[in-house]
Amino acid sequence: MKTLTVDLPGRAYEIQIERGLLDQVGEHCRAVLPKAERLAVVTDSTVGPLYGQRVLDSLTQAGFQACLITVPAGEPSKSLAVLERVYDALTGFGLTRTDAVAALGGGVVGDLAGFAAATLFRGVDFVQIPTTLLAQVDSSVGGKVAIDLKAGKNLAGAFWQPRLVLMDPAVLDTLPEQIFLEGMAEVVKYGCIFDRTFFDFLEARPNRAALMAEMEHILYTCCDLKRGVVVEDERDTGNRMLLNFGHTLGHAYELAGNYTRWSHGAAVAAGMCTAARLGVSLGVTPADLPERIEALCAALALPIRIPCTQADYAAAIGLDKKGVGHRISLILLEGLGHGIPYPMEKDQVLAALDALLEVL
Amino acid sequence: MKTLTVDLPGRAYEIQIERGLLDQVGEHCRAVLPKAERLAVVTDSTVGPLYGQRVLDSLTQAGFQACLITVPAGEPSKSLAVLERVYDALTGFGLTRTDAVAALGGGVVGDLAGFAAATLFRGVDFVQIPTTLLAQVDSSVGGKVAIDLKAGKNLAGAFWQPRLVLMDPAVLDTLPEQIFLEGMAEVVKYGCIFDRTFFDFLEARPNRAALMAEMEHILYTCCDLKRGVVVEDERDTGNRMLLNFGHTLGHAYELAGNYTRWSHGAAVAAGMCTAARLGVSLGVTPADLPERIEALCAALALPIRIPCTQADYAAAIGLDKKGVGHRISLILLEGLGHGIPYPMEKDQVLAALDALLEVL
Repeated sequence: MKTLTVDLPGRAYEIQIERGLLDQVGEHCRAVLPKAERLAVVTDSTVGPLYGQRVLDSLTQAGFQACLITVPAGEPSKSLAVLERVYDALTGFGLTRTDAVAALGGGVVGDLAGFAAATLFRGVDFVQIPTTLLAQVDSSVGGKVAIDLKAGKNLAGAFWQPRLVLMDPAVLDTLPEQIFLEGMAEVVKYGCIFDRTFFDFLEARPNRAALMAEMEHILYTCCDLKRGVVVEDERDTGNRMLLNFGHTLGHAYELAGNYTRWSHGAAVAAGMCTAARLGVSLGVTPADLPERIEALCAALALPIRIPCTQADYAAAIGLDKKGVGHRISLILLEGLGHGIPYPMEKDQVLAALDALLEVL
Repeated sequence: MKTLTVDLPGRAYEIQIERGLLDQVGEHCRAVLPKAERLAVVTDSTVGPLYGQRVLDSLTQAGFQACLITVPAGEPSKSLAVLERVYDALTGFGLTRTDAVAALGGGVVGDLAGFAAATLFRGVDFVQIPTTLLAQVDSSVGGKVAIDLKAGKNLAGAFWQPRLVLMDPAVLDTLPEQIFLEGMAEVVKYGCIFDRTFFDFLEARPNRAALMAEMEHILYTCCDLKRGVVVEDERDTGNRMLLNFGHTLGHAYELAGNYTRWSHGAAVAAGMCTAARLGVSLGVTPADLPERIEALCAALALPIRIPCTQADYAAAIGLDKKGVGHRISLILLEGLGHGIPYPMEKDQVLAALDALLEVL
């Protein structure tokens, strides 16, 4: 088993990575939650039927009273309406302040259950059991939880660190191809902004079988990199913003596709490729970089360009929570494995994109 | 002006108390929020018409873009449905992460606006401008914010410290007698659990006119006492629980009256009086204490006893968030000005109440 410690002061927690870990959820939870009587597992209509019973059995064996709370699969569950149903299910189950909530699923379930855990009784213990590649390398580590509002995604949320993160690479076997590959967009991102060697490693394994053979290493590397910025910048005011590489433009693509046509991963892949080209046009990024990133994304069947209007870009930049007044920091690459925040006037961003898109 | 500093590490803030402060809200907010462009003031349908425009004018003069968001007065506004309307109004106003939310009103507005501020964009700056005595001496200090769920009051919330608390004793002039006196229940509580001299001071001024003449001192003393426990125990796991004196039994009375018949303050007053008698019956509290507390409450037209069934007590104790499993800590008085947590089995509490109520 590979173990990482996220060493936040007073709230250190472990990320444990091992094939077959799903059947040992109970004992690992018991180790960090010695006094909890009840553990409520929030899952969705896709993951629950696949893995819910195994997790419940393991928890029961470890002496927990456990229950499964199942929400519909998909982004619309990150709403106040579904949150209310989760609150009601948790209080109906008899959960108290000293009990805990676990998320068994992808990013939607993790964000929703995490927000419920962050706020019920002003905060109860929380365990992440991410079951998608995207959730394993991204959303389950770092403590960001949220729901969507009418005005945009992730607009209401909290910073709420889990007590434990359990990752079983075996659950990725049942992941549809599309969902697996969109998680790879975030994996590629880590190579781009933090680790040239890791990018080379991925470049040499541009297909699912080769990647799955090294999945413990891949999960470990991504979580280790994310842990570094999270510990340094828990509340997302500094270096953690590097993780937004590809995301600001990606938001524009998600918006252009009305949040249904393009997955988050696909939008991020195209966002990274366009941000790399933008970096070249601004004289920040080496000229050979965009092609390498595009080649890797293309090999993984991720889009390198998504059609989008200037209005979509404007909306994505204007609403973007990273924005401070009229300026915004885009993340650009100074080199492979070296992302930097690049503060610009918002209309300067639009002009640069405009000039770039005429060329592409 | 009287000023208190709540010295939480990294998030110290001031409580400012002065007659007429309402017209200087803008400059005081500007001093702690130098970069904010927008400030959204959440208020209710009672307080907004009385004081909203004065606060808006002061904020505009200090260079803020300010708006008023008005929710219906009363406890039902502490709901997910009204929270959603507040979120939508805040995003519709164009609020960003570097802007701020202010609460102008009593405890309901403070809790609701505070929860919105704690969660919008995962947390924006928050200013409390409490306009009831209860909110001034209790809910506006300490950072507890919450909304109600179907299963009970304050069940979803956060710890979110304000950047500034502004108290204008003059706003109490417009407070209905009943609302003023119910705030006094919490004022009396501080004397009971922390400060014998303050209790004596109140005992010598058992009417509104005499109390109003000393209101800056009363607000200062209560906030100073609350500040002490908040700084020592921000997350409410230790000494802060002393503030629950009268509240656990008070919950039973609120429940018995279906949360409409008895105000929170009335329920707390009766809860304190009954807890004092319970303390005597358990050999903890000096025998002469209940009569002094009852005499002061009676002079303030607060109830000293509220009829309630054993089922109400059982429900209040069972649901109570302070409970850890089968045990609960009631706050009892070892002497005047000296509250202590007294851990008991929940059925032991019910038996002691049963015996006591047969005598009374």
